[in-house]
Amino acid sequence: MFSIHPTSFVAPNAKLGTGVEIGPFTIVHSNVVIGARTKIGAYCEIGVPTPLSNGSSLEIGEDSLIRSHSVFYESSYFGSGLTTGHRATVRENTTAGKGFQIGTLSEIQGSCQVGDYVRFQSNVFVGGKTRIEDFVWILPYAVLTNDPTPPSNDLMGCVIKDYAVISAMAVILPGVEVGLRALVAAHACVSKDVPEHMVVAGVPARVIGDTRKIMKRDASGKPAYPWTTHFHRGYPTEIIEMWQASANCSDYET
Amino acid sequence: MFSIHPTSFVAPNAKLGTGVEIGPFTIVHSNVVIGARTKIGAYCEIGVPTPLSNGSSLEIGEDSLIRSHSVFYESSYFGSGLTTGHRATVRENTTAGKGFQIGTLSEIQGSCQVGDYVRFQSNVFVGGKTRIEDFVWILPYAVLTNDPTPPSNDLMGCVIKDYAVISAMAVILPGVEVGLRALVAAHACVSKDVPEHMVVAGVPARVIGDTRKIMKRDASGKPAYPWTTHFHRGYPTEIIEMWQASANCSDYET
Amino acid sequence: MFSIHPTSFVAPNAKLGTGVEIGPFTIVHSNVVIGARTKIGAYCEIGVPTPLSNGSSLEIGEDSLIRSHSVFYESSYFGSGLTTGHRATVRENTTAGKGFQIGTLSEIQGSCQVGDYVRFQSNVFVGGKTRIEDFVWILPYAVLTNDPTPPSNDLMGCVIKDYAVISAMAVILPGVEVGLRALVAAHACVSKDVPEHMVVAGVPARVIGDTRKIMKRDASGKPAYPWTTHFHRGYPTEIIEMWQASANCSDYET
Repeated sequence: MFSIHPTSFVAPNAKLGTGVEIGPFTIVHSNVVIGARTKIGAYCEIGVPTPLSNGSSLEIGEDSLIRSHSVFYESSYFGSGLTTGHRATVRENTTAGKGFQIGTLSEIQGSCQVGDYVRFQSNVFVGGKTRIEDFVWILPYAVLTNDPTPPSNDLMGCVIKDYAVISAMAVILPGVEVGLRALVAAHACVSKDVPEHMVVAGVPARVIGDTRKIMKRDASGKPAYPWTTHFHRGYPTEIIEMWQASANCSDYET
Repeated sequence: MFSIHPTSFVAPNAKLGTGVEIGPFTIVHSNVVIGARTKIGAYCEIGVPTPLSNGSSLEIGEDSLIRSHSVFYESSYFGSGLTTGHRATVRENTTAGKGFQIGTLSEIQGSCQVGDYVRFQSNVFVGGKTRIEDFVWILPYAVLTNDPTPPSNDLMGCVIKDYAVISAMAVILPGVEVGLRALVAAHACVSKDVPEHMVVAGVPARVIGDTRKIMKRDASGKPAYPWTTHFHRGYPTEIIEMWQASANCSDYET
Repeated sequence: MFSIHPTSFVAPNAKLGTGVEIGPFTIVHSNVVIGARTKIGAYCEIGVPTPLSNGSSLEIGEDSLIRSHSVFYESSYFGSGLTTGHRATVRENTTAGKGFQIGTLSEIQGSCQVGDYVRFQSNVFVGGKTRIEDFVWILPYAVLTNDPTPPSNDLMGCVIKDYAVISAMAVILPGVEVGLRALVAAHACVSKDVPEHMVVAGVPARVIGDTRKIMKRDASGKPAYPWTTHFHRGYPTEIIEMWQASANCSDYET
């Protein structure tokens, strides 16, 4: 095992917490703060300087894991427990909360805001100025766009509200808001705001139902949504307890 | 030319066959068996350990070629003649037969089964628990999903039968079976099983015809399917002879 | 700052212009000509030999910037001012003009022709034998295909005419021509030629309007197309002046 691998280049004034591990052939630039116990894999470039930054450091929270071949620019901030797949790309001036998971090959462009416990699977693309709230899921090859009349300077980021799920290969058009606990079906092209709890599908996407009427596909006979009633893998105990308490209080009934 | 490049790291107990070449800056972990004459390019990480593995080695067959920036986890098995593009990612507990081609940027998640002579072009995504039979083609940006009610633990892998072709940007929904020699058109979203020999297209996909009525677009005036009647590039002589023998026996007539 | 990083491998007979910078761990093969002041980031492999090449050098024009983890094959030519994102892949026998921008994760297969000032955003895929004229824009996850009956040897590259814009997740089917200043909407699947100035959308794509009737989404009250009337970022002064002169001459009226 390595701590700071001898083939890596770590700038002398990069700030590394205790127990940080830096993998083979990885480059850590100077304007970087890495929290305790964070592990960074091989072939990563961390804290790439850019004239588009606001001059602040790249900060990566403690207990994070950045897998191989990933690239992070300066002037972004990630809470504790960041996890990435391989070859993630994150540009400048983005802020994310705790427990953010970024899948293999996913890319986050500049000036995005990401809440707590957001999870991306592989190859998700998030255009600049997107705002993603807490506990959102985004599945493979989903694309969040931002230019209504390309090419232009009139960028309109999407907004994805708490607990929403965006399925594989969906496109969210510029400025669209996906509502609380809404579900965007696979391969949908979403041109209008999605109401809370609703399912949208198709090109262009239309409301096809209510998430609360979708049943799980196992033998349980239970509803699939809110997904927080049955899917808990990897969330902290206090979060799961919060979800269970709200379920008991009929928070999900309408 | 190099054999084991001096900048690479090869674990002392990794098992390398005769004539294996390891490129610059590549990392080969200990739980790895690489067949004779296999070449691995630069910046690859081979045999990444994971707690999700079953503890077995990563085995890569002889006469394989893994191009640069690729990542393979432990506990997967590939027959002889594996070829990858750049930046392929293959997770644990997957088994593939002979002559598998994985395109640039393609990703195979855990616990998949892949037959013989399967070919992926670039940026194909295969969700966990997928089963792909022999001689299947998957074109760029096709996505094989596995979660019917994301996020959940109820994963249902797709099944792709012998000789089927899945075109660019198609999405196959969880648990769907694409039949023998079927053709999924570009940009289709496939929510139901696809019958043998049929063509499906659209969002959602519907049967639009029979592959055996599609003509080639060259001057030959011949049918395009079964593709094995005219497309032989890169297949071994005994396979081509098998195809020619079945054609003579009217195996394709119905 | 580095010039030729000591961890890089540059073949002795590669031809590097004055002021060229080569990043850490990067490999430059022998059949390569790199113009003055060009910068190549870390973990790149430049000039990969291939039996599919015509034997000519890879030539990269002056004042170019190739970002980290990119791979270029031999026998392709790029004019001055090439810029790439991270992990670009460019195959053999392709020719591109001045000011070409290739986004992160984009891939250009062999034998393509690209005009001047073409811009790709992230994760664009261009199949072999495609022809792209000047000032074209291609947005994230767009795929230009080339095989009408996959798999076959009857490749038909797409043609994208001057100033056309192809939006996110669009698929252009083999041999389709997208006309002068046309706009392909996000998530469209384009199976027929697109007339000049028209907008197409849907799966399959149909003409839904005229680009010249689309208004900008800012407070200006001005038309969004031709985009050259208002979007000038990064283009040279003489190009912008040319656009302004044609606008004054009512070149865009029909």
